[in-house]
Order: sequence, then C-alpha cells, then structure tokens
Amino acid sequence: MKSVILLSGGLDSATCLYYALSKKHHCFCLIFNYGQKHKKEIKKAVAIAKTARVEYKIVNLALPWGLGALADKSKTIPAFKENRKHLPSTYVPGRNTLFLSFALSFAESIKANNIFIGANSIDFSGYPDCRPQFINAYNNLLRCLNLKIKVLAPLLHLTKGQIIKLGLKLKVPYHLTWSCYRGLAAPCGKCDSCKLRAKGFREADLSDPALR
Amino acid sequence: MKSVILLSGGLDSATCLYYALSKKHHCFCLIFNYGQKHKKEIKKAVAIAKTARVEYKIVNLALPWGLGALADKSKTIPAFKENRKHLPSTYVPGRNTLFLSFALSFAESIKANNIFIGANSIDFSGYPDCRPQFINAYNNLLRCLNLKIKVLAPLLHLTKGQIIKLGLKLKVPYHLTWSCYRGLAAPCGKCDSCKLRAKGFREADLSDPALR
Repeated sequence: MKSVILLSGGLDSATCLYYALSKKHHCFCLIFNYGQKHKKEIKKAVAIAKTARVEYKIVNLALPWGLGALADKSKTIPAFKENRKHLPSTYVPGRNTLFLSFALSFAESIKANNIFIGANSIDFSGYPDCRPQFINAYNNLLRCLNLKIKVLAPLLHLTKGQIIKLGLKLKVPYHLTWSCYRGLAAPCGKCDSCKLRAKGFREADLSDPALR
Repeated sequence: MKSVILLSGGLDSATCLYYALSKKHHCFCLIFNYGQKHKKEIKKAVAIAKTARVEYKIVNLALPWGLGALADKSKTIPAFKENRKHLPSTYVPGRNTLFLSFALSFAESIKANNIFIGANSIDFSGYPDCRPQFINAYNNLLRCLNLKIKVLAPLLHLTKGQIIKLGLKLKVPYHLTWSCYRGLAAPCGKCDSCKLRAKGFREADLSDPALR
C-alpha cells in the first residue's frame, strides 16, 4: 500500500514514518521548504528519509505573505509558556491544511491510499490544525472529493513520552531529528518545541540522543 | 469586509470578483502560476485585477509531480465530450483544495473574512472539487480551525448563461477573460472550456467580446 508521509525533520513525523514502515506501507515522503529561518529542519528530514531508504520530494512553498515567527525574520521565537491563552507567534497560518493539500495532490498523482501526519494533540502548542476534529474534517473533505485517500495520524492521542517509547521500538534514528524552532548550532532548550521534546525524553526515562 | 478572491483569468472568477466588489468587499486577488502550459491565463488575470483596481498576489506553485494535461507538456488537451464517465485529463489533482488552502493562509494573514471561488457545478467538466458538497466540507474544515473565514461560491448553482448575464450587469470586462485550455493565439473552440463558454454566450444571446 502506497502512503505519503509528511516529514519535517522533527521527532513526531520521523516516528510516523517508521510506524508506517513497520506496517509495511510503501512510503513516499514530502518535505516542505516554507521559508523556515533555518534549513536544519530540511537537512534533517532528508537525512531521516535517506536512513529509512524511502523516496522523498522537497516542495518549495514560497508564500508571498507572513508566515509567523518560524519564517519571518523580523519576529523572535517565544519561550515556552504553560496554558497559553492565545496561539503563539510560531503558529503558521494554514500550515497543516496546506501541507495536507499538497500531500493530497501528490497522493492522487501517485495513486497512494494514505497520508501520514505526525499531528499530536496532547503535548502540543495548541495549534488548531493538530487536533482530532481537524483531521476528521480533512478526511470528510477527501470523501467529498470521491478519493480513496485517508489521512492517518497515529500519534494524535499519545504523549511525547509514549511517542518516544514507540519510536525506540521502531528504531527511529532520533539522533538525526531536530525539534528546536531556533536554528542555532545546538537546540536552545527554551522554545515550545525543545521543552516538549525534553518532557518526552524525561517521561521515557532516556537521555536525548541528539544532545549527546 | 476583507475578502480573498481566487482569480484565474477565466470568465467565472472574473464574475466572482466583480460580484464581491458590488457587495462592497475589499478584495485581494490570488493568482496561481501552477505550471499551466501557457501563461496567457496569468496575464489575463493580472489585467482583470488591474482593471478592477484591486490588489493581487501571484503564487508560484512549482509542484514536483504530474498535474494533468493543463500543465503536463506530454499530454494533449482533450476535445469536449458530453456526459463523460471519467474525469477528463485536464483534471488537476487536488487543485481547488490547494488553491483554497493558500487562500486560507493568505486570508488568515491579512485577517480577511471571506474567500470567493468561482466554482460552478452546473456547466462544468465534472471535477469533484467544484461541487457544493466540496465547498461545504471546506467550510466545515475552516470551522474546525476556529476561523471566522468562509468560502463563498456565488456562481455554484448558476448556468454559464446566468453567470454571463450577471456579469454584464456588473460590467465584468469579459473581453479580457480567457477560457481556452490551449494557449494558442486564439481560443481553440474545441476544449471543454471553450465549449462551455460558447454555450454561455449563446444562452445570454450575446457574442463573445473576446472573439470580436
């Protein structure tokens, strides 16, 4: 069964890829260059796809409008905050909707049956496009298009610790993954993404191989 | 009220733009360069936006996979056929889903409330992403994202003749619109798009100003 995997270079999507491979899916990865401040994420995604020996395509998404703090050089990455009332500035307008729409177009063109997305609604920054109702609504849209393509989000209801424990069983090369929103030489340890990653490794009772 | 208009250079989206303007929307057009065989469509869309004195942005959509006969130089544009059983080769996988997803991202970033699409389910080529259930499913997706953005498709249930009659009242510059799928000096008169356009002008009892 052919499947398209949204691969970001982060921990969740890498686990998603190895999960799909463990279920014998024939995987094709999509990697997005949407103007992230640093290209580390993209390099890591490519390294993961190569390690997993799967095909991949890089989509260049040159959007002529603001994309939030992850891509806009004039905005700084905020530090982690518990129980935020507002979406953090790292929110990219329409990101997962866009990514899934590219995946849908790609899946249609290669006759794939599934799109895997590493969305997680437990340990996340509150982005609405990571929640179960969004995934359900997208699957409803695919049905309306008469497509036999389904979006699968196997990590949706797992904690970061559970994701990492699953990934260890699947031999995910976590040393190759990159989560930090800032593109420095080493992870900053302060942004949402670093904090959630650290929480995961703590819960899994492991040290982060990317920090060794 | 700010609104994003998907503008293709064709007759329907131009009518849609003038309809939104007549309802006092502050319009921002999105024009897509998705590798169409000919750039006429894009030039016409720009000319229409300029004539209507509205802002526009061109999105370059370089997809690294097949996009059907409209963009794939190895495929020919099929002639019109009544009651087709299969989708014609001019179908672009995921096109309107992608276009709406870009529009959503743009609308979020400029805080617009509406996205206008010239989709039509009466005189059309059977593309599933032009049907009412698709528009409804997309609006449901937007609600799941907690967005106060709505997709409006005012031409959805009109015949081509009704669209043209509406457009004439709104003073749409139909002489600037281009419908033909082939990028020749003059419209081919044989493709779906030319046939549907001719039907519309016949129904409206008018000669096509683009052919004069």
